[in-house]
Amino acid sequence: MKYSQLFGKTTRDDSKGATLTSHKLLFRGGFIRESTAGRYYLLPIGLKVHQKIQSMIKEEMDKAGAQEMLSPVLHPISLWKETNRATSVGFELMRVKDRSETEFVLGGTAEEMLVDLVRKFQISYKDLPFHLYQFSTKFRDELRARGGLLRVREFVMKDGYSFHATEEDFKKEYEKMKQTYSTIFKRLGLKTIIVESDNGYIGGEYCHEFVVESEAGESKFFVTEDGSYAAHEEVAKFRFEEVNDDEDEKPIEEVEGSGIIGVEELAKYLKIPVEKTTKTILFEDEKGNVIAAAVRGGLDINEVKLMRVAKIHALKLATLETVKKVTRADVGYAGLLNLPKEVRVFMDESMKGRRNFEMGANRTNFHTINVNFGRDLEEPATFYDIKLAKEGYISPNGKELVAKRGIEVGNIFQLGFHYSSQMKGACFVDEQGKEQPYYMGCYGIGLGRTMAAIVEISHDDKGIVWPSSVAPFDVHLVGLDLDDKTVKAAAEEAYAKLSDQGVDVLFDDRSDRAGVKFADADLIGIPLRIVVSKKTVGEGKLEVKWRTKEASQLVSSQELPTILNLLQ
Amino acid sequence: MKYSQLFGKTTRDDSKGATLTSHKLLFRGGFIRESTAGRYYLLPIGLKVHQKIQSMIKEEMDKAGAQEMLSPVLHPISLWKETNRATSVGFELMRVKDRSETEFVLGGTAEEMLVDLVRKFQISYKDLPFHLYQFSTKFRDELRARGGLLRVREFVMKDGYSFHATEEDFKKEYEKMKQTYSTIFKRLGLKTIIVESDNGYIGGEYCHEFVVESEAGESKFFVTEDGSYAAHEEVAKFRFEEVNDDEDEKPIEEVEGSGIIGVEELAKYLKIPVEKTTKTILFEDEKGNVIAAAVRGGLDINEVKLMRVAKIHALKLATLETVKKVTRADVGYAGLLNLPKEVRVFMDESMKGRRNFEMGANRTNFHTINVNFGRDLEEPATFYDIKLAKEGYISPNGKELVAKRGIEVGNIFQLGFHYSSQMKGACFVDEQGKEQPYYMGCYGIGLGRTMAAIVEISHDDKGIVWPSSVAPFDVHLVGLDLDDKTVKAAAEEAYAKLSDQGVDVLFDDRSDRAGVKFADADLIGIPLRIVVSKKTVGEGKLEVKWRTKEASQLVSSQELPTILNLLQ
Repeated sequence: MKYSQLFGKTTRDDSKGATLTSHKLLFRGGFIRESTAGRYYLLPIGLKVHQKIQSMIKEEMDKAGAQEMLSPVLHPISLWKETNRATSVGFELMRVKDRSETEFVLGGTAEEMLVDLVRKFQISYKDLPFHLYQFSTKFRDELRARGGLLRVREFVMKDGYSFHATEEDFKKEYEKMKQTYSTIFKRLGLKTIIVESDNGYIGGEYCHEFVVESEAGESKFFVTEDGSYAAHEEVAKFRFEEVNDDEDEKPIEEVEGSGIIGVEELAKYLKIPVEKTTKTILFEDEKGNVIAAAVRGGLDINEVKLMRVAKIHALKLATLETVKKVTRADVGYAGLLNLPKEVRVFMDESMKGRRNFEMGANRTNFHTINVNFGRDLEEPATFYDIKLAKEGYISPNGKELVAKRGIEVGNIFQLGFHYSSQMKGACFVDEQGKEQPYYMGCYGIGLGRTMAAIVEISHDDKGIVWPSSVAPFDVHLVGLDLDDKTVKAAAEEAYAKLSDQGVDVLFDDRSDRAGVKFADADLIGIPLRIVVSKKTVGEGKLEVKWRTKEASQLVSSQELPTILNLLQ
Repeated sequence: MKYSQLFGKTTRDDSKGATLTSHKLLFRGGFIRESTAGRYYLLPIGLKVHQKIQSMIKEEMDKAGAQEMLSPVLHPISLWKETNRATSVGFELMRVKDRSETEFVLGGTAEEMLVDLVRKFQISYKDLPFHLYQFSTKFRDELRARGGLLRVREFVMKDGYSFHATEEDFKKEYEKMKQTYSTIFKRLGLKTIIVESDNGYIGGEYCHEFVVESEAGESKFFVTEDGSYAAHEEVAKFRFEEVNDDEDEKPIEEVEGSGIIGVEELAKYLKIPVEKTTKTILFEDEKGNVIAAAVRGGLDINEVKLMRVAKIHALKLATLETVKKVTRADVGYAGLLNLPKEVRVFMDESMKGRRNFEMGANRTNFHTINVNFGRDLEEPATFYDIKLAKEGYISPNGKELVAKRGIEVGNIFQLGFHYSSQMKGACFVDEQGKEQPYYMGCYGIGLGRTMAAIVEISHDDKGIVWPSSVAPFDVHLVGLDLDDKTVKAAAEEAYAKLSDQGVDVLFDDRSDRAGVKFADADLIGIPLRIVVSKKTVGEGKLEVKWRTKEASQLVSSQELPTILNLLQ
């Protein structure tokens, strides 16, 4: 491709408001342009990178035995109603009606669509397992689109769905996909960490994110130094000292203490250890129901864990009005004592086994001390894990947690019977001729975000440094002194020869000065730069420079093939 | 691929209500399944065919210098408002709002999006021409979806848009695209006819359809036997005898004649030649405005031509009520005399030069004779071509028109300044530094419809006969007698060897009987069938049969490469 003919040239100006490196460089390099917030055009060289990522994913997915197919983008909303996701997914789902008022969802994930397809066939145990995947445009009506391709509202996703007769069979596939994804990202030049994560609105019991460590990422997670434990902040577990108080129960007492903020201050004021205090927080769910959650003082509540145990899809702090109504007190004095019956109460495991502990009195300016289960407060049948992990805490396998940020480029989900139990006919005929629900998994990779992640971790202050596996071209051929006919002919010849050999070349044939052309080459980030100039022609050589290196070298055309072989 | 593992096996039953061959065969062969009317899943082998079509289109488009990119699926409706298409396109356009109430259109064609992209760059004459294209899902909220992939509501389209400094430059690209499209369809095994057609809601002055002759098609068009003229029914022109009456003007007269239907009967009744009669039809446009159109008796009105000259986007026959209101008479007596001023009148060229002609009297049961321009009826400044062509009429170049039906697989449009004149900033800087609007063209191919067209013209009573260029696999390897260990080993070996050589093989490894397997092979339609059975193993040979031939032959494995070479 001649650069003069390429649509979408480089620019020195940043995109308005761009803060992330990948956004700036992909914009300036001529890879992307924004249509409206979170919706991007992929320009010709941007699409080339995107397609290389796609091919590599396809190659590895096919190798793993998955079969590519394609489902419609518009999903009948009736399917999402079967699984109660039409409302639970909330605002992120876009809906559209056709001329006959039939309602559709703009696909954001396609579990229901795949189950609906599979149930059009009468499948038996002989047909299982199988894994279907697709590359298709997905829509998420995100509240906030971030700069560039990191968090968008429309993107191409590889989404795959596997169907199994047994949980054991699924587990093999899950492990295979862990391997396959690791290989894919490795080939793309990305080092990924496999992190336990929350399954969000997908359903199922467990799942993992593939995260590229980067300050630009939105995934907050914890790892142990040896990598033996890695979990997203939303689900991270940690060890805590269990309490098993054997104190005698003291008489319950209300103590006045106005305007005391935080458990530390309270502990000091009441002259008790922080562990004796309790943090009670009131929330409202998507329907306005009030939820009270409590942890031992010194710990915090993890709202995602709380949502999972409460089986709700949205959570916000209760309004001042609600707090007053429920506790009959000002904010700051909430406890679990004498709450109205309609308030759902969740206590963390750290509450268990305590005696004589403190709690808000549900009375303005007052705190209750020496609260005891059984006598003052009903002991719940189940204590839950609704605690928030923090850096320095100890992982379940006994090692210190380190906090990290990263970009989630892929994820894999155990779905189990989540969909097959809710959708009629989502079953197979077993060896005994009996219908059985199938066991499912699903697996996603966001292509645009992967592309941005590569830029975030592979660039320098001059521009992008593409790994050759996904670079838009193999070689950036820069012609200098092109008003000299001999040089021009030599440059054109080099372009023709390389192209004939199957090398994909971007040939900068413009009349601009060397500085401009070199800056563009660095910005675009193609692995190998070859210069043809008056000087190189005079010496009968070519000037070759790797994007990753500072120095260039003069080589003869005989030496070139050896160098090109390094492009893999 | 082992057939036992393939998702989406063949079935003997037709899809419910399928009438078209391509629908039946693609369904039965396991290529497609319908989600909701007009929205299809492409199953693994269906997607393989679709991808081969896509690769071939890409190859030829790239060869022609076009650059692939990708635009968002959701188009801000503000762009469609700039060109007045938000309303004019009517019901076929699907709209969707995001959480912030911003309205989008589900892309059906992307002229505005491409212009909006291009105007983000300051382009100059040096950047022109360029041609950008994409493969992306398009949405058309069709009133009626036809069976299978022929007319759907969601499909992948290759749409390309070219930008030029001058009309002359555009014309070169238009011719190049005619060539490119012809090559693409030829490589896909399709013989296409290039037919002048209506530009519908795309805009511009002229365009052409690429049509595959087939009774399953919806495009009605005319060709001359030598192919020197080909035009869609909607736009076909024809020669007609011009009238240049030199009769003296006779006194105008109203003649009673109740219940006389049609111009033939009327001519007989009035004892005048049919050519003296007039056919006047009243229509209403999308806003309810009344339009009167008139042609000489013996001809019919072409509503599409009428819409173009009237610059409206919808047309329907006026209701009885409207006819009565406008003509103050019952239906059947409409003419152009004394119509209310608000009625827009369009007269066909065939009206020109007439004297003493007949016309409905706008009075129940009456016909006016000896009408003359100037005296009784104002002669219009322009007579239009709003006549409908029919089989047997004479083409503009003097040859008889033959009526045909076909499937429109592609189309190319001159857009001219249609978009650049309406969208601000849709311009380039010329050599004098002045801003000029650019000249545009656009070019589309529907991939699914092309796939269906191939099946419509390439099948027999047993199933599909794929051209090898788009067949889902190169070879259908059928293993028989697989309970015999030696045979099974031989079949597995053949499968492994062929795959190693890069031959894409579908290996029927099931235990079914030969009849079932051969019927499936015929139905799926892979070009070459190879059988490994007790018999072939006994003779140390392989049985080879082309899908297009009746007879099979036994060949040695040494002879096989020669045969495989025929797969191109």
